[in-house]
Amino acid sequence: MPSRINRLTEIQAKRKVDAFLFTSPATVKHLSGYFFNFDTGPSPFHYIPAALFIIPVENFSLLVADNEQDKLITLKPDIHVAYYSSYDYKQPFRFAEDFFLQLLNIIEANRASNARVGIEMNTFPYGLFKALSENCPGMKFSDITEEINYVKAIKDEDEIACIRQASVLSDIGQASVLQYAKKGITELELFARVRLAMETKAGTRVPMMTDLVGGKATSSGGGNPTDRIIHENDLILSDLTPCLNGYWSDSCNTMVVGTPTAEQRKVFSLVKEALEIGIHTIRPGVQAKEVDFNMRNHLEGEGGFGHHGGHGVGTVYHEEPRIAPYNAMVLQPGMVIALEPAIYKNDYGIRLEHLVVVTQSGCEIISKFNHIFEQSH
Amino acid sequence: MPSRINRLTEIQAKRKVDAFLFTSPATVKHLSGYFFNFDTGPSPFHYIPAALFIIPVENFSLLVADNEQDKLITLKPDIHVAYYSSYDYKQPFRFAEDFFLQLLNIIEANRASNARVGIEMNTFPYGLFKALSENCPGMKFSDITEEINYVKAIKDEDEIACIRQASVLSDIGQASVLQYAKKGITELELFARVRLAMETKAGTRVPMMTDLVGGKATSSGGGNPTDRIIHENDLILSDLTPCLNGYWSDSCNTMVVGTPTAEQRKVFSLVKEALEIGIHTIRPGVQAKEVDFNMRNHLEGEGGFGHHGGHGVGTVYHEEPRIAPYNAMVLQPGMVIALEPAIYKNDYGIRLEHLVVVTQSGCEIISKFNHIFEQSH
Repeated sequence: MPSRINRLTEIQAKRKVDAFLFTSPATVKHLSGYFFNFDTGPSPFHYIPAALFIIPVENFSLLVADNEQDKLITLKPDIHVAYYSSYDYKQPFRFAEDFFLQLLNIIEANRASNARVGIEMNTFPYGLFKALSENCPGMKFSDITEEINYVKAIKDEDEIACIRQASVLSDIGQASVLQYAKKGITELELFARVRLAMETKAGTRVPMMTDLVGGKATSSGGGNPTDRIIHENDLILSDLTPCLNGYWSDSCNTMVVGTPTAEQRKVFSLVKEALEIGIHTIRPGVQAKEVDFNMRNHLEGEGGFGHHGGHGVGTVYHEEPRIAPYNAMVLQPGMVIALEPAIYKNDYGIRLEHLVVVTQSGCEIISKFNHIFEQSH
Repeated sequence: MPSRINRLTEIQAKRKVDAFLFTSPATVKHLSGYFFNFDTGPSPFHYIPAALFIIPVENFSLLVADNEQDKLITLKPDIHVAYYSSYDYKQPFRFAEDFFLQLLNIIEANRASNARVGIEMNTFPYGLFKALSENCPGMKFSDITEEINYVKAIKDEDEIACIRQASVLSDIGQASVLQYAKKGITELELFARVRLAMETKAGTRVPMMTDLVGGKATSSGGGNPTDRIIHENDLILSDLTPCLNGYWSDSCNTMVVGTPTAEQRKVFSLVKEALEIGIHTIRPGVQAKEVDFNMRNHLEGEGGFGHHGGHGVGTVYHEEPRIAPYNAMVLQPGMVIALEPAIYKNDYGIRLEHLVVVTQSGCEIISKFNHIFEQSH
């Protein structure tokens, strides 16, 4: 796989930019290793958590809030770190002013005041544009969102290792659903046990997107757990999507608390076959839409599913390559893909998901749990 | 209290703007009632969750992602809602293009193409500025962040009711810590029980900022729960800050699992006195820094605390009025304030927090739990 620096150099040449200034947390994480934990929203003590200024080969500079210093343990090597003032109680906040000041220092130290700078236009604050325009009137900006999203779709070994670690949490979560699901408890009670198992493995809180619902709610694909009580013979759809140190995993199983109907058994088997068909379709050179078509086609007779067949997973939980009917993107080694075929009936739904990484000759399944429909007692 | 519309009209006159275009989730929530749930980060299916275009008195228009329609149950009356395309699987995402298109429709319908528009510069995407500049070359922008933050500091009855509801969750959480804290379980196990009680009350997942640590970690003020096991005679510091439908609460207690030392009992009493002093200082006309001084002064002999004495709470968990040594902001009826005096020793810390609303003559305590140091068995 080409290194990240090589890929930035390619964008540099193609888009005729001298430098990059990234402000989206997902890109900053991908390129620097620094992760801002988003799960309580934007910090009132930050301008933005961090910006990453890059002149490929020469300089990687991370500008980060000074109350995030203990979060830099996952930082990649050879990154210069500068801080701007964040929390204070002895004087009014001055994080915006200090952010601009420190960023201008970095730009001047790199003699980049007249640079053509590649940015992600839609996460780039207008206030930052204004400050740079006033202080560096020769600076020019180009939106390179599409190009950097393509770079992010291909993971190196370090990133794949991070996703494997996040995936261990999904595996534990899916095992916990099978262990703890029972009639008489609420979806939230089940979730509390599942999440505790995952957070205990991580040793800390874990941001998590979750579908964890039972009964009729499975027919519309999921939703957050509620105070609804689980009944005998309910299906439970558990889509567990944890984020560990900035890298996401993804996984889904559907199981039954009690005894399924013959139709439900058949539907489960069909969806499992579709997932296996998808996995066997994945290899370098195949288009994303071919993977989608093969899974969707297998399930059409039973009604199928009205969403994507899968998606890339990395520092965002849904990114390229999108496994969707329109997408001609060609799969390449290092892409990490979640496949999630499903069948939704009027009164229940079954979705099964695995996470894979594209290899030189096919793909390797990252998630280690098995899709199991019935509890063993 | 002046209505929100009156206060926008005041900004309009003072800053000579015709209209407003708000893009920060906290301001959009405050003015429209729409809340984007941030706890799994920015959505890969959104441009931004929503923008709010306002010509005071005449028009309130909310532009929101079309996959957020079921989140509009908390919307205030008299708000026009427009949607832009978000999630799709049959064609590539076009949320940026559609966001601009729908926003231009709103601007044209309001004949505002040449308006002077008040914005929050640092959450306003550069891409949005660029699209508007190209399509409405006569439009001018003014940053009104400071003014709108001051507006947000004063809550109306509806908002105070929302904060009271969020505060019920804190009360349940604090009662649960007293009930479930015991030696031999981990901080994460304690947290799972506390959070389940809070989420069961809410009937759904609750985004939450949390300090929940035991022992030595209390001396530095908190942190997220870990896999550390709680020991006999550990202090447990529990700062529970849940967000319910976009409004935050805040609360902190410190308790002991076992028997405290005589010094710890004394410190607990002192901090509780400081909290009461703070509460008794709050009334309209008092400066924020006077509240801070009275609490801080009471604790100086025991080492005191190296952070703010409190802060406003609303659609952000820390906002104006900041209760801090420098802040001359004058308290007014409708401000909601968390006070959190503390003493941090070398090997333990005690912090106690209540949430109050400024009334015509003083303040009313919103949080209903009592600060209790020792468990009853």
